[in-house]
Order: sequence, then structure tokens, then C-alpha cells
Amino acid sequence: MRKASIVSIGNELLNGQAVDTNAVYLSEKLLALGIPVVSRYTVPDEIDAIVQAFDLAQHDADLIIATGGLGPTDDDLTRRALAECLGADLKCDDRVLRQIRDFFARRGLQMPERNKVQAYIPVGGKPLENKLGTAPGIEAKKADKWFFSLPGVPLEMKDMFERCVLPELAQIPPGHVTLVRKIKCFGAGESAIAELLGNLMQRNRNPLINCTVSCGVITLSIVASADNRADAKTMIEHAEQLLNSRLGTLVYGVENQTLAEVVGQMLAEQNKTLATAESCTGGLIAKLLTDIGGSSRYFTCGWVTYSNDAKSTRLDINPDLIQKYGAVSENVAAAMADAARIRAKADFALATSGIAGPGGATAQKPVGLVYISICSEKGCKTRRFIFSHDRDSIRRRAALTAINLLRLELSN
Amino acid sequence: MRKASIVSIGNELLNGQAVDTNAVYLSEKLLALGIPVVSRYTVPDEIDAIVQAFDLAQHDADLIIATGGLGPTDDDLTRRALAECLGADLKCDDRVLRQIRDFFARRGLQMPERNKVQAYIPVGGKPLENKLGTAPGIEAKKADKWFFSLPGVPLEMKDMFERCVLPELAQIPPGHVTLVRKIKCFGAGESAIAELLGNLMQRNRNPLINCTVSCGVITLSIVASADNRADAKTMIEHAEQLLNSRLGTLVYGVENQTLAEVVGQMLAEQNKTLATAESCTGGLIAKLLTDIGGSSRYFTCGWVTYSNDAKSTRLDINPDLIQKYGAVSENVAAAMADAARIRAKADFALATSGIAGPGGATAQKPVGLVYISICSEKGCKTRRFIFSHDRDSIRRRAALTAINLLRLELSN
Repeated sequence: MRKASIVSIGNELLNGQAVDTNAVYLSEKLLALGIPVVSRYTVPDEIDAIVQAFDLAQHDADLIIATGGLGPTDDDLTRRALAECLGADLKCDDRVLRQIRDFFARRGLQMPERNKVQAYIPVGGKPLENKLGTAPGIEAKKADKWFFSLPGVPLEMKDMFERCVLPELAQIPPGHVTLVRKIKCFGAGESAIAELLGNLMQRNRNPLINCTVSCGVITLSIVASADNRADAKTMIEHAEQLLNSRLGTLVYGVENQTLAEVVGQMLAEQNKTLATAESCTGGLIAKLLTDIGGSSRYFTCGWVTYSNDAKSTRLDINPDLIQKYGAVSENVAAAMADAARIRAKADFALATSGIAGPGGATAQKPVGLVYISICSEKGCKTRRFIFSHDRDSIRRRAALTAINLLRLELSN
Repeated sequence: MRKASIVSIGNELLNGQAVDTNAVYLSEKLLALGIPVVSRYTVPDEIDAIVQAFDLAQHDADLIIATGGLGPTDDDLTRRALAECLGADLKCDDRVLRQIRDFFARRGLQMPERNKVQAYIPVGGKPLENKLGTAPGIEAKKADKWFFSLPGVPLEMKDMFERCVLPELAQIPPGHVTLVRKIKCFGAGESAIAELLGNLMQRNRNPLINCTVSCGVITLSIVASADNRADAKTMIEHAEQLLNSRLGTLVYGVENQTLAEVVGQMLAEQNKTLATAESCTGGLIAKLLTDIGGSSRYFTCGWVTYSNDAKSTRLDINPDLIQKYGAVSENVAAAMADAARIRAKADFALATSGIAGPGGATAQKPVGLVYISICSEKGCKTRRFIFSHDRDSIRRRAALTAINLLRLELSN
């Protein structure tokens, strides 16, 4: 097994309504197994187009992975197309039908009649259980070609891939190994990081270092290719050390770690607690921190004091202070953090006050201006930031910057 | 001109390093011109693969748009592949060469020798100036097939598409107009909606109704094709009426409207205010509501009372009540909403208490169990839900369901 081809099925992928994140996920996973994806066919919910894509894909590769078109409605045609490509009939699989009925039953519902079609599997194929939805996947072989048909819903696709596909593919002895390691950074721009890395980011290097940016989080991917896993691993480790030494505290984690996850671990390890008082971020800091399971160990209480009145009533911010400096000010942000920390009896508190836009700006206070305060028993530190782009970006950047300030505080 | 096919060229699109946002952009723009994209071929930087993709694409469609592979390096092979497909030789275009030299000169640089290759255009083809980079595009015709080869860098591609491609395509009297209208629903599953719509969702209908689901939000896209814009518009309007009458209050909005946006408008129009008290959603309801600019008009205050202590201290929930029923209970959710409404002096309050997982479940209280309470001056209504999938999905579904309950309350 050396090559894979992806068949992405769905009108939404061709009319601009959806981005094909499944293909990116699969490509990454397959490459890590040493199986490069050599082609991808994106086709509408039409039987002839899907059949043709399967034919082309099996011409290009030994492993064909399709996503989408397994739902219960009339535009879900992948089952039929795969059966046609395999030269097999579709047959109702009683065990799968039971699983679908059970899926509904667990939710106290009766299975709609139309979902029955999802239990039809090409004869000779093997159903793959969908634990998160009603659409089972299908695994099938035809001569030396190996087909997997997975659901289009990303969550269901990923769960099925990891449970049913990955273990099977991992057994194939790879010819060439490519390993990828992601290093996550926060606190500097892409070009500043490129400057720090210098020649490490040149193209045609092995390992190669790629850089992507999303909302201030910079992901450096180290891609190492070698004849065997041990060599590739050594190359990755060496490059990771080099990056860490050049970037210092800009590096906050690895792989898919989020800032909130890393900060949560630090709080838990140091046995510290946190409270939040948010104005412009409107609950986003609390949301990001409580994204992490078990965050109740360190996250005590959050206030979303969006109005001036809420700031005064909830956090006892002196209305004169708001009057004198404005709600978006160093003084008010610091007072919010201070009040939140004391009220919640927490070790740390984070507070934000800013202008997320599009309205609300003045000559002195532009859209994007955000004050972030962090308080501990040692006192309050408040910093002024100007973030750019739209409301959503400004709020995200402000929330992540606040969490990053706490990370730096906890690292000391 | 009726149909388009996209050829996306580049190793980075197949190894999981890059998401093909160019394809999404082009699909949306073309559909708006009444030109549906019927297929997409994603191929590596290999000459045979690119030539095959061009052949397949011109078999599917009259308009072929390629992106990528126009750079100056050895792995940029689109020029050669297009020439082969057209049966034409490549020839250096002096004017283009001058433009590339000028591009470097404006930056005080001399053109590297390797960039000269970018001035080679298939004989009979027309170069398209790249104002943002060195790679010119190529336009070419062969019989009734029309090719555009554009750069892969999204910024350069979009600029070139808008300057050089759009004006030409816009001149074609559309033999056919395709219009799309999105109807957004919340409160029922995909199959329940399909059941309500019945034959309206059949394939090969015109207008066609496509269905996509994301975190409980169901988007129905009405795609209408007609000989002229007026007819297509009438078809869309008619279908929209039909959907609205069949789906009733399941429909919350159109196009890219979010639930929070719609509820925000309703609150503003009815001059009502809202407070939130969140446990398991951890600030997400507040975050979603304050995503909307100007939300300070109706969003007063939010509490994220994640710990039992915070519930008692901040919202005066009687510890005995928590002791007796548990924090995840109808009684506690209702008490939270009631306290939030009174403290914030708001017209409405939403509260959530649940088990988002992965830990925290008991025999009686599984992961996914969430109580949502909505209080107004008329009293509190509290409902019990079981949401599935992972922590993130459970929290999103709970937050959206809470906001949807408020929408239904405001519609009465």
C-alpha cells in the first residue's frame, strides 16, 4: 500500500457553501502513516459523477477514501455508487439496521422510515459503526483496491476514521516515513517569527518547517521524511529543540494544544484558581477556559459585565471612576480584575474592557483598543492593546492575549 | 456557457498543509454568475496529473479554471500542462517578461534568472497581468472550451479573477441563471426536516433543495435555475414560502444569519433585556449574544457560575437545593435563571446546568444531560435535554438551544 486518493462527495463542496476540512484531516493523517494522497475528486451528489470519481481514484491509488453522501435523504448516493463500482448489490444489513434503531431509541425517538436506507451495504462490504450519527461507513475490497466510505459530518468522519480505518492502515509496513510535529506559538507576528528562525524556514529542507497563522496563534509544522521511523523521529526532535531555543516563551505548546488547555494545566498543577470579569470579550475568556474538561478545579466564577450598570452593580466599580476615565480605560479594567479576584476568592483574575466595534469608537479610543488586566495577590498589571480586523477577530485576539498573559505570569 | 470545472494544483493541497479556500471562493463567485461548478480536480505538482485533470475538466464543463503551479520553480508545471492540453507551444512573451522585471525593479531588486520561465505563454493564449506577484495568469480558448489559469496565492488569485476573469464572464448573456437562497432552521434533526419537506427534497428538481447541518443548525439551500433572473427569483420566492409554511417556527432566518443575531434583533425591537447564568456552557451563551455589534442595548449581565460555591455566593442559590437535587437539576437551573433575571433587572434570563463531559457523569445523570431554564415576568420554564457527541458539541448545542428557546418565547 503506497498511495491514496480521496473522493469528496457533496453539492455543498462545489457551490461554495462548505470548505472541505475532511480532506485536509485525512491527508494529514494518511501522510503521517507514510501514505501520500495523490489525487482528490470533488463531485456533486450525482450518481454518475460519484461512480466516475471512484473509477478515477482506483486508477490513481490503492486506497480510496470517500466522504459524504451516506445520509438518509434522496441526495445521498454514495452507497449506490460504491455498489456499482464494486459490481455488487446493496443488501439490508440487519445488525446495522438495529444499530440505527438503537441510536434513535437512546434519544427516546422512533427511527423515521427513511433512515432504513442507511442500513444497505454492498454485498461483500463491511459496515463500519457510526457511534455519533446514523450513517454507517462501508469498507470494501476489490482485487488490490481498498475502499473506505465515511460520513461527511466531520465529527462522525473523524471518529470513524480513528476507530475503524487507522488501526487497519497502521498495520501495513510503510516504505517511507513522514512525521509531522506541530509547535504552537503566541505573542509575536509571523514575520517576527520568520526573522527569529532565519534559514530554518527555507524551502526544500528536510525537515521542512511550515508556518500557518490563525487568530494570533502561529503553528510551525516540522515535516521530516526518512527511510524509517527512528530517523524521522530524531530529525523532528532535533528541529524541535532548535525551535524552542530560538523562540523561548513564544512557544506555548505542541500539536493541537490550545492556550486555554496549557494554562488550565498550569493552574491545576500549581493549585491556583481563576476568576474573570469580561466586558468587550463578553464571556469568551470564560468559554475558552471552560472548553477544557475538569476546568471546574481552577475556574471559579466569571462575570460578563457588559453594561456600565452591570460593572457598578456586580463588581462595585465606582461610577465616578467610569465617569472620569470611561469604561474602556486602564483604571476600570484594573478595578474589574481586582473586584473579581476578591469576590471570587481566587488567586488570579483576568479582566477586559475594550471597543470591539463596529460602533463605539471615539477620536481617542479607536475600534480595537482593549485594556487587559491581570490581578494576583501581588497586585494588578494592566496593558493596553490595539487589535485589528473585525469584531470577531478583535474579541478572539483579546481573549487569547489575556489567557497568554496569565500563562506568562504562571511561568515565572 | 453553462458549467465550470476547477483544477486545483499543488502538493500542499494534498498533504494536509493547506485548505483550498480558492475553490470555495471561485465556486461562490461562479454560481452567482449562474455558472455552477460541476467538478473539482485536486492534483499534485506533476505534469501527467495536471494534463489529465485538464482533460477531465474540459469533458465535464465549458469553462475550466485552474489555480496554482504558475511559480518560478521546477515544481510549477501548469504552463507546460496547459500548453500540452491546448496542443500549443510555449513562447516567451516579451511584454510579460518586462512586467516581471518591473515587478522586481519596483522593489529595488533584479529579476532572478529563474523567474524568466513565468513569461512563457502557450501560443494563442493571452497573459493576464499579476499586479500583486510575479506569476502572470493565462487565458486560452480551444474550440468551445475556455481556460483560465490563475495563481495559487489566494490574494493574487482573487485580484486577478476580479480584474481579468469576472468582467469577461459577466458579458456572456447567461443562457441560464442560477440563484441560491439559504433558509436557516433550528429545533429539529435533518431527517425530521426531510420528513416535513417530503418530495420537495427530491433530486433533479428545479428548484433543488440542499440540506447541510452544523451543530444543530440546518441550512436549506434553494437552488433555482431559469432562463432569466426574474424567473429564477420567482422560483426562489415560491419555494421559500413553501418551506416557511411547512417548517413554521423551525425557520429562524435566512442566508448567513445566526440565532444570536435574530434573537438580538427581536430583543432590540421589543425593547427587552436579557441576563444569563451559565454553568455547563461556561460563558458561551454570553459570547454568542455579544458577538453581535450593539448587543449592549439588550444584553445586561452574565454570570458564569461554574462551581457550586459560585452558584450559592453569586446567585444566592440555596446550598440545600444543590444538596438535595444536585447542581445539574431542573430546580437549580430554574433558580439560577430566576436569580439572574432579578439581580440584573432584566426582562428575560437564560440559565444552563448540565454535564458537558467527558467526566462528571453518574448513573442518573449521563454526559450530555443539560437543563435549560428561561425566566420572564411570567415565570420560569425549564426543560431537560440530552445532547450527544463531545464536550464542545454538547456545549454548543446547549447554548444554541437556550438562545432558540428565547427566540420561540419572543415570537409569541
